[in-house]
Amino acid sequence: MATRHLASWVHNLKYSDVPHVVVNSAVSSFYNWAGCAIGGSKHHATVIAHDALKPFFGPPQSSILGHKGKLTIDAQHAALLNGIASHVHDYDDTHLDTIIHPTGPVASALLATAEWKGGYSGQDFLLALITGIEAECKLGLAVWPEHYDVGWHITSTTGSIGAAVAVSKLLGLSEDQTVHAIGLASTQVVGLREMFGSQTKSFHPGRAAQNGLMAAVLAQGGYTSSEIALEAKRGWANVVGVTKSDLGSSLERWLGFGAGAKESLGLHTTTQPGRWETERNSFKPFPCGIVIHPIIDGCVQIHSEFESQSFDLKDIEEVHVTVHPLVLELTGKKKPKDHLESKFSVYHGAAIGLIYGKGTPAQYEDEVVQDPMVISVRDKVNAVAEQSFRADEAKIVVTMKDGKKLEKHVVHAVGSSEVPLTTELLEEKFRDQCEVVLGNSLGATSTALWNVEDVKDMRDLSSIL
Amino acid sequence: MATRHLASWVHNLKYSDVPHVVVNSAVSSFYNWAGCAIGGSKHHATVIAHDALKPFFGPPQSSILGHKGKLTIDAQHAALLNGIASHVHDYDDTHLDTIIHPTGPVASALLATAEWKGGYSGQDFLLALITGIEAECKLGLAVWPEHYDVGWHITSTTGSIGAAVAVSKLLGLSEDQTVHAIGLASTQVVGLREMFGSQTKSFHPGRAAQNGLMAAVLAQGGYTSSEIALEAKRGWANVVGVTKSDLGSSLERWLGFGAGAKESLGLHTTTQPGRWETERNSFKPFPCGIVIHPIIDGCVQIHSEFESQSFDLKDIEEVHVTVHPLVLELTGKKKPKDHLESKFSVYHGAAIGLIYGKGTPAQYEDEVVQDPMVISVRDKVNAVAEQSFRADEAKIVVTMKDGKKLEKHVVHAVGSSEVPLTTELLEEKFRDQCEVVLGNSLGATSTALWNVEDVKDMRDLSSIL
Repeated sequence: MATRHLASWVHNLKYSDVPHVVVNSAVSSFYNWAGCAIGGSKHHATVIAHDALKPFFGPPQSSILGHKGKLTIDAQHAALLNGIASHVHDYDDTHLDTIIHPTGPVASALLATAEWKGGYSGQDFLLALITGIEAECKLGLAVWPEHYDVGWHITSTTGSIGAAVAVSKLLGLSEDQTVHAIGLASTQVVGLREMFGSQTKSFHPGRAAQNGLMAAVLAQGGYTSSEIALEAKRGWANVVGVTKSDLGSSLERWLGFGAGAKESLGLHTTTQPGRWETERNSFKPFPCGIVIHPIIDGCVQIHSEFESQSFDLKDIEEVHVTVHPLVLELTGKKKPKDHLESKFSVYHGAAIGLIYGKGTPAQYEDEVVQDPMVISVRDKVNAVAEQSFRADEAKIVVTMKDGKKLEKHVVHAVGSSEVPLTTELLEEKFRDQCEVVLGNSLGATSTALWNVEDVKDMRDLSSIL
Repeated sequence: MATRHLASWVHNLKYSDVPHVVVNSAVSSFYNWAGCAIGGSKHHATVIAHDALKPFFGPPQSSILGHKGKLTIDAQHAALLNGIASHVHDYDDTHLDTIIHPTGPVASALLATAEWKGGYSGQDFLLALITGIEAECKLGLAVWPEHYDVGWHITSTTGSIGAAVAVSKLLGLSEDQTVHAIGLASTQVVGLREMFGSQTKSFHPGRAAQNGLMAAVLAQGGYTSSEIALEAKRGWANVVGVTKSDLGSSLERWLGFGAGAKESLGLHTTTQPGRWETERNSFKPFPCGIVIHPIIDGCVQIHSEFESQSFDLKDIEEVHVTVHPLVLELTGKKKPKDHLESKFSVYHGAAIGLIYGKGTPAQYEDEVVQDPMVISVRDKVNAVAEQSFRADEAKIVVTMKDGKKLEKHVVHAVGSSEVPLTTELLEEKFRDQCEVVLGNSLGATSTALWNVEDVKDMRDLSSIL
């Protein structure tokens, strides 16, 4: 029932069914994704994957983003490489209720498909993107939090299915074919949390994009799968959510084929509008695990006071931060040795906020992570968990050698649903990431992305990217 | 420790370390695999996958087996398609302690790699194949049976890792690179048991082959992963074996880095020889779930008595079979509607044994499954579970309308470790599968496969296949 219901919803959804606020969120999600994919295209991990897999590349169908002069390869590998690039700086988007980074797997598969086939408008693209993001987040909600606690990287485990339904929607698969695409995607479960801190973390959304693309293409060709892949006794939800009880009800609640659950998939009637997860997507102001964001936010604010009051970093005696317990579980690396590990260090986050007054990919490069001055501030940071704190809350107290204290209590971090990233900040983030790669064409590219809804053929847009 | 230990074992194993009886099993495993891959190359599922994915094919590097006139595509897709073909008739091999079909994922990845790169001898190939099969089966034993019970298709969940270590071995990766290859493979967990009975089941070993090949190639290029992927708290064993307790000890027992466990990985010294899982591989005499084999075996024997005593099928009143409980759980489909479902019907297995006196892929074609005569015999079959029976044991009682009874108690089915398939039967199976495809060259191909150990360059062998 869950699989069939999801396929039917995806198949039947029309652009006019989607509230405009949801479309706007999808546009921002795509904009943010494109910036991340372009910005991550020069990262070591992306380059290694490109070079290692080059012998297998098929015909030129789809672009690898971030290359001056078009570089096109087969759609499968383009989906993988753009997916890796979009996640490699840990700078992408976040569906806060599940900490899924939803756009990576879906947009990577979808843009590659749109370019390969041609003839799809910006609205076709956005509608498909929305079906994918909704599918990922609803399925994530259904297995949350046990699925994540056990050790699955929820972005990619749901991402394969999100990418599959999105590509199914774009290619115009029938409802039955979409059922089989969901089955083929659900059986490819990629992503262990143990990989956090290594390049394999960014491989996850890339591989999820490929999994979904392959699933949809095979299903379109007539390859068969289970028709109850999501809800069966030994199907997706029960296997990847094995420590959670009553997954049947949970699927029913979030996919909404029970009696009008408020949180169900967005519906076509105004009497039962459902809940759109795309609208709840947020964008990272800092390129690291989202739980560190309130600490960086607070430290950036304290940095301004340092500057205005002419304090010297050398005079810091101690930096005491109070955080949600998950912060230490996920990001407790006291002495990160390189850029990948620094993403999982609340201590590094606090230090760069205080020293630089910002947290962009530049503050996570190896040279910064290994800089003695940064290390000296980092070593002064102590972090304590406080059960009553929310995940987007933090308190920072900097004690100077003369006993003076600077304090900051961040109630909701920038980038949270209460303090969303403004369009200006999104554009600043885009500029930060893409300036080196895009040069003069940065402004035009940014504008073209914001106008995706009006694009006649997505091939035109990707030729700009 | 488990990951490092496995990588070190793989990296250091020499051909001279492997007992010849193990090499012989590897040769039989490869022979049986090649027959299945050739025989499955014309199956609907293989053809659909080929046609659907053709737009993405890269340069000609590796053969798709079973095509007259060489058909070469990129190694990644060749691994996928040969992997699908080798499993699609459910006719491959079985490591009975885990019901893993070990050769499919490993040989599919390995042959594609050997052809792509060139210069690898038959001994290089067999040594790599053995490392892959050992890795799969040892890891399977470590998470068995909870992992399978929950709903994972253990052939492909361990197959990605087996394929990765085999390709790592063949390509000569360092121990460190092999560690990362294991990590990259372990995070790609493919295969839900819910897919049994659909074409997606055969997709699993094919995708596992690709996962492993990609993992090894990325690791060779320098892509990093966890160094404790198998044993970490949120690593492979704990995540995919979450309902099993004490996985650390289990890994230690089967990989054997504890104090000289008898079942450890085969070692280089005669004082601690370990246990070789390759030697325990078995080959299916019938193209269906292995638990049905004792029933078919018994019914084939009764068929001979029918013939010698001139009984008529129409005079059967009832066929009563007593089986291990797992038989009904896995293969209890009373009214299979097509060839895929018939593989999971103990009733169909009994009927074709009685009617045809054999069980080859021909007895599982749609026309046979839907034949009224077959249906009439199938409908007379009743199956009862008996807790005290082993999985390779069955009792069949055929009652004729005149009250006469024919009985057969199969203590160990043909193909079990007690009654292994003879070389003659393996060759007969090869002939059955490959005659249509290979025609006149069948004999030469069969001989070439048996002589794989003497091959100078595996490219020479694949040009014959």
